[in-house]
Amino acid sequence: MSQLRQDRTTKEWVIIAAERAKRPHDFKRIEPTIEMPPYKADCPFCPGNEHLTPPETLAYRSGGPPNSRGWWVRVIPNKFPALVPDGSLERKEEKGFFRMMDGVGVHEVVIGSPIHNQRFPFLDDKQVEELLLAYRERYLGLRGDEKIKLIIIFKNHGKRAGTSLEHTHSQIVGTGIVPSNIRRKLEEASRYYDDHGCCVYCDLIEEELSIGKRIIMENERFVVLHPFASRFPFETWIIPKNHQASFGQISMDDSKVFGKILKATLYKLYIKLNDPDYNYVIHTSPIKDEGEDYYHWHLQIIPRLTTPAGFEMGSGIYINVAFPEDTAQFLRED
Amino acid sequence: MSQLRQDRTTKEWVIIAAERAKRPHDFKRIEPTIEMPPYKADCPFCPGNEHLTPPETLAYRSGGPPNSRGWWVRVIPNKFPALVPDGSLERKEEKGFFRMMDGVGVHEVVIGSPIHNQRFPFLDDKQVEELLLAYRERYLGLRGDEKIKLIIIFKNHGKRAGTSLEHTHSQIVGTGIVPSNIRRKLEEASRYYDDHGCCVYCDLIEEELSIGKRIIMENERFVVLHPFASRFPFETWIIPKNHQASFGQISMDDSKVFGKILKATLYKLYIKLNDPDYNYVIHTSPIKDEGEDYYHWHLQIIPRLTTPAGFEMGSGIYINVAFPEDTAQFLRED
Repeated sequence: MSQLRQDRTTKEWVIIAAERAKRPHDFKRIEPTIEMPPYKADCPFCPGNEHLTPPETLAYRSGGPPNSRGWWVRVIPNKFPALVPDGSLERKEEKGFFRMMDGVGVHEVVIGSPIHNQRFPFLDDKQVEELLLAYRERYLGLRGDEKIKLIIIFKNHGKRAGTSLEHTHSQIVGTGIVPSNIRRKLEEASRYYDDHGCCVYCDLIEEELSIGKRIIMENERFVVLHPFASRFPFETWIIPKNHQASFGQISMDDSKVFGKILKATLYKLYIKLNDPDYNYVIHTSPIKDEGEDYYHWHLQIIPRLTTPAGFEMGSGIYINVAFPEDTAQFLRED
Repeated sequence: MSQLRQDRTTKEWVIIAAERAKRPHDFKRIEPTIEMPPYKADCPFCPGNEHLTPPETLAYRSGGPPNSRGWWVRVIPNKFPALVPDGSLERKEEKGFFRMMDGVGVHEVVIGSPIHNQRFPFLDDKQVEELLLAYRERYLGLRGDEKIKLIIIFKNHGKRAGTSLEHTHSQIVGTGIVPSNIRRKLEEASRYYDDHGCCVYCDLIEEELSIGKRIIMENERFVVLHPFASRFPFETWIIPKNHQASFGQISMDDSKVFGKILKATLYKLYIKLNDPDYNYVIHTSPIKDEGEDYYHWHLQIIPRLTTPAGFEMGSGIYINVAFPEDTAQFLRED
């Protein structure tokens, strides 16, 4: 029989559909991995094409002027931004009923490697460290901007995950609002804190480690698991073991350790599922809630293996056709 | 500049991304419409194959025994159900922290025509009436079941919308829980009611009709529009003009009028976008809230033209690359 499972951090239910369940290896991508060249003359993210992008916000390079070759990580404003720095946070109305405001914020692209066909799991360790340091540096740079309320760092890999550019990159968006979705996560977490006197994510890690069967791996600082109420097959969370509400609080050392385990996790998914399309997102507190005892930042990886349909859209209940216990075991196996 | 717009019924923000905006006809499907035969010998939904499905729950036929030929609408239990009638609504726990329960509910399939390749916009008027009457009859049949808290009627059309079976069909799921997503819609609606003394959807219709630019069509009972804070290009809502919390309250006459305008809307989308993949879902109140003054059932059509990515997953804010005013005008034009 199917199971309804509740995510304790959001109170959302998922259906783990036993009657439709697939075995973990059924999710392996059948098409061959897309072959790409290491350099593409018309790719705006390839070295030598720096003039094709807006001027960089940050770059790690060994010398030379900005917006020239020689970088290994480069951060630029998105050429087609969803949000832009100008404009006002003031609410406007259309006929008193409809509320709107300027699309205020920032939208940046982080080019994770100068090599066009370099996939994340194959970046060398030093490069991953530098990429995570760039995330951290941009986070800390943006959090000083009074207009920015929340910073979202994410990556889309592959067509099913919504990306059109193949050169490895991720994105940073700073929003002028706190979306209701995030408000609700905070609300649920604060309610749990009021009931139990501790952070729901801290408790979740403790419970999961003691049960063990949904754990993929861990190191001294982070634990990687498939959550009890996974919405998607192979949904994967990476959570810092020590309580920390905001990604902005991560130390430089920890961000290196974080990069290492993120790479190891993406490598496992790459090998076991044959380069699946995926999104990852860092879920972090709004900037004004960085000190809270009840929220706890974490990264979610969502491989795009199934297609949410009308039922999910109408109910908000996801139907998952894999048991997280099975997929976790499958990933743990060598 | 991009705009942030708030959906007054959910308080959720969307970004209408001007810098990325496309023209309405850019969303037209380029691939030719998939050709299908009117009958397929191995299709479980084609006449003569009634034995390939579980025994029917309801069928409209001119005579003959159940589970034989001669029907024009047929409702059957889903062979691979997400939820099943047996089991208990009792909550269980794994180690006190993780909450779950049996996957209790019903999951039915409504076969909308005996003709394999009949698309919804090309069903004849009488057939559409009968299909909507079947929705209504099953809704009323299921609402008497004490275990069912919410009934969701939806259709997935095309691969991008998550369907694998091509024979025209829709689905009905009755759930043993009210999902938090629906609770929040009710909460927002009741808050609006407390503030304004009327239903937010009733006000929305009035405002939209007076503005006019997002209206696609209307008849004596229903209005079709692209909402102010559309999450997706060509997101389309059909809303009854008279206040009604639940689809279960629709009269037989009104369900025929509803079918007529639903068909006309899907026909417009078919012609203008060249048979796009889409989901539609009837959003209706939980069964115990059917009499509420603050909620108002409606149908949402989501054409699957773009792919939500990491930003949407992380923030709950959808980036829409089309202005609903433009897409509505495009659909209105002949």
